[in-house]
Amino acid sequence: MVSTTPSPSDQLPALRVAVLGAGTVGTEVIRLITQQGEDLAQRIGARLELIGVAVRDAERDRGPHVDAALLTTEPSALVREADLVIEVMGGIEPARGLLLEAMAHGASVVTANKALLAQDAASLYEAADEHGVDIYFEAAVAGAIPIVRPVRESLAGDRVQRVLGIVNGTTNYILDAMASTGAGFDDALASAQELGYAEADPTADVEGHDAAAKASILASLAFHTRVGIGDVHCEGITAVSAQDIAAAARMGRTIKLLSIVERIEDGTEERVSARVYPALIPDSHPLASVAEAYNAVFVEAEAAGSLMFYGQGAGGAPTASAVMGDVVSAARHRVSGGVGPRESNYADLPVASIDELRSAFYVSLTVQDRPGVLAEIAGTLSRHGISISTIHQELLAADEDAPGRAHIGITSHRALESAMTAALDDFSSTSTVLSIDSVLRIEGE
Amino acid sequence: MVSTTPSPSDQLPALRVAVLGAGTVGTEVIRLITQQGEDLAQRIGARLELIGVAVRDAERDRGPHVDAALLTTEPSALVREADLVIEVMGGIEPARGLLLEAMAHGASVVTANKALLAQDAASLYEAADEHGVDIYFEAAVAGAIPIVRPVRESLAGDRVQRVLGIVNGTTNYILDAMASTGAGFDDALASAQELGYAEADPTADVEGHDAAAKASILASLAFHTRVGIGDVHCEGITAVSAQDIAAAARMGRTIKLLSIVERIEDGTEERVSARVYPALIPDSHPLASVAEAYNAVFVEAEAAGSLMFYGQGAGGAPTASAVMGDVVSAARHRVSGGVGPRESNYADLPVASIDELRSAFYVSLTVQDRPGVLAEIAGTLSRHGISISTIHQELLAADEDAPGRAHIGITSHRALESAMTAALDDFSSTSTVLSIDSVLRIEGE
Repeated sequence: MVSTTPSPSDQLPALRVAVLGAGTVGTEVIRLITQQGEDLAQRIGARLELIGVAVRDAERDRGPHVDAALLTTEPSALVREADLVIEVMGGIEPARGLLLEAMAHGASVVTANKALLAQDAASLYEAADEHGVDIYFEAAVAGAIPIVRPVRESLAGDRVQRVLGIVNGTTNYILDAMASTGAGFDDALASAQELGYAEADPTADVEGHDAAAKASILASLAFHTRVGIGDVHCEGITAVSAQDIAAAARMGRTIKLLSIVERIEDGTEERVSARVYPALIPDSHPLASVAEAYNAVFVEAEAAGSLMFYGQGAGGAPTASAVMGDVVSAARHRVSGGVGPRESNYADLPVASIDELRSAFYVSLTVQDRPGVLAEIAGTLSRHGISISTIHQELLAADEDAPGRAHIGITSHRALESAMTAALDDFSSTSTVLSIDSVLRIEGE
Repeated sequence: MVSTTPSPSDQLPALRVAVLGAGTVGTEVIRLITQQGEDLAQRIGARLELIGVAVRDAERDRGPHVDAALLTTEPSALVREADLVIEVMGGIEPARGLLLEAMAHGASVVTANKALLAQDAASLYEAADEHGVDIYFEAAVAGAIPIVRPVRESLAGDRVQRVLGIVNGTTNYILDAMASTGAGFDDALASAQELGYAEADPTADVEGHDAAAKASILASLAFHTRVGIGDVHCEGITAVSAQDIAAAARMGRTIKLLSIVERIEDGTEERVSARVYPALIPDSHPLASVAEAYNAVFVEAEAAGSLMFYGQGAGGAPTASAVMGDVVSAARHRVSGGVGPRESNYADLPVASIDELRSAFYVSLTVQDRPGVLAEIAGTLSRHGISISTIHQELLAADEDAPGRAHIGITSHRALESAMTAALDDFSSTSTVLSIDSVLRIEGE
């Protein structure tokens, strides 16, 4: 018989862990569980015993960290045997069904699935409550950056007013590339795709859907209410032009795709707002210098003041780090009792429509170059109660097809969204304004 | 009888809360408990009932938020009646004795007391363990910034490699003022004192003791080992000169007082290092732009990569925000069972002495201006195995008392601390070097 030195964790009880999905995040989760097994056991007070990894194709090689013998194509059987289920497969189904099944069989669950949480957090929370198990999801927002735990636990004794987040790395990479190279959106997207920062089908990122899912999660946690993906006003970055970025730079501003969630207290009724759009922020704002595919979340709370959290928002290892923090928390509860935070939705706040919000705007117009145009445009804005902050006019090179045109860039003071919509409608119906080239909001001032 | 609409929390059980200390932080804690009572009750599932506030002088007015009837000069009697004790009085005793007494009587405790934790976390942890209660201390490091919870919970499944923190607002304010105005240390300190950013006796801040206490707490949490205040190498900022700041700026660097905790894996034995000193960091490092009295903590972990946490590190309301997050966590455990994280010191790592560390250095010397001086200095460094990265020489204006002097600024590649100490000893004993004006380390590259 070969004598081996028993490692200290041999004496500890085992927790049976199932992983759903073995993509970039899943393989990194498995690597950490394997390579840091001894440390994790000491931190938890129990060993993590990997009992299976559910995949669609059990024949495919998953690299050096994934024992092929653990692969299974029967996730449902797997989750019924587990104490802890880690869901990193993504998508709504079968992820939701499997998480519900896992909890019904007594497992605590950790998920990175922002789309599922944004669509149906309620049924997951209810299952966790009913079965007395944990549900954790730090990795669903901003990858490695601890933001879910700080918002729902560290700030639980404070009153969050507003969260501004750069929570989508792909769009930040594209906007940053546009700003530093002068490229247009299409070129910047193509180069992001080449470098692996954007997917072949970039829709979920560039149209803002991914950022909107994260906004819904952040709003729900920050304001103790339910905000679903359908409550989030969402605009992507496909319409942002090289001209917009250059105009922003001239004004000392940077364009970022922001997820904004905000408590609105104007008058009798308190409401919340959740929205995603590209916005101009001052170069001096901490979010302005967030470069490449990095994420950052800026939080304003009544007592804490301004906080910022910065780091890698995607990628296998960073996301796996967030997942494993949750795994340790859920596992500790298995060992020493207790459960993590539950859904907190007592505030039950109505969601404000974008029309009711007030923002400062940047509007870019192509107009006829003739006397009285500026006065006409200023008059239209004024009629809708919109006050101009700055105005920048330049003649455009005339050619045969388009003689006598000028570009006008206007920034406004804070104005009601519905008033700006009405003013833009007026611009559309006048011959003076040849085209409305951009309408962007200004934030962080 | 006057009929009142009962607020929803009237139905909830009460938790008896005692506050020790009613200074800037204590009064803000009391304000939050009072003003946000309804929200806190919903988040916790129990009402926080303030049963007393221990102070030294019960006659002094504590402002509009503190009910004078709650003031008591008998903290010991108070803590024995409490479910939750919030210690914001500071100092080692009587704070330690009262926290131990509170836990012995079954109360969970929340403290902001970095000095106490750095000196004797062990006895507090042991008492919490023995009596099955919680001890939380988010506010002890970097005020409002969630850093304790992220390090001990969010990163519990990762492997922290290094933490660089600006965790003392006073010294950051002074260094920032020196950099932006060109003032010397004494003038910048005086202006910080005038503006309330530095205390009348600034020793604990400017000598680095406060930052060292925080380094000991961060090192213990990050590396799952015990690092006491005595294990932290500590240098303050009193010797940093306007010339150093200007020289750093010429090199594209900024001087910050850093708390550095690091895992050292060079060879057979793993060790940790904890140290505080003013260091040059590149202007491009995220910590370089942390201005005024703000704090920021930069964390490097194996899977997560680089993270940064930024916010207000001191002040009544920001610190109270961190305290209240802990209060909610501890209170939730009272309501639904379980306990928070305990001490994790299984790794039991030795602490490396500063002499064993390798750093890049900036050394500023005043030397005789004569041929061969540079060669002599370079030769001395080389003899000690120190490789020069850059060298900057300028003649100093000669006067009758000091003719023919030059200033030499040298940056080195990474070299052993003990080698640099030996080289500096050699410089001290040669007539060529008239004075060693500064020795600063270079970090974050």
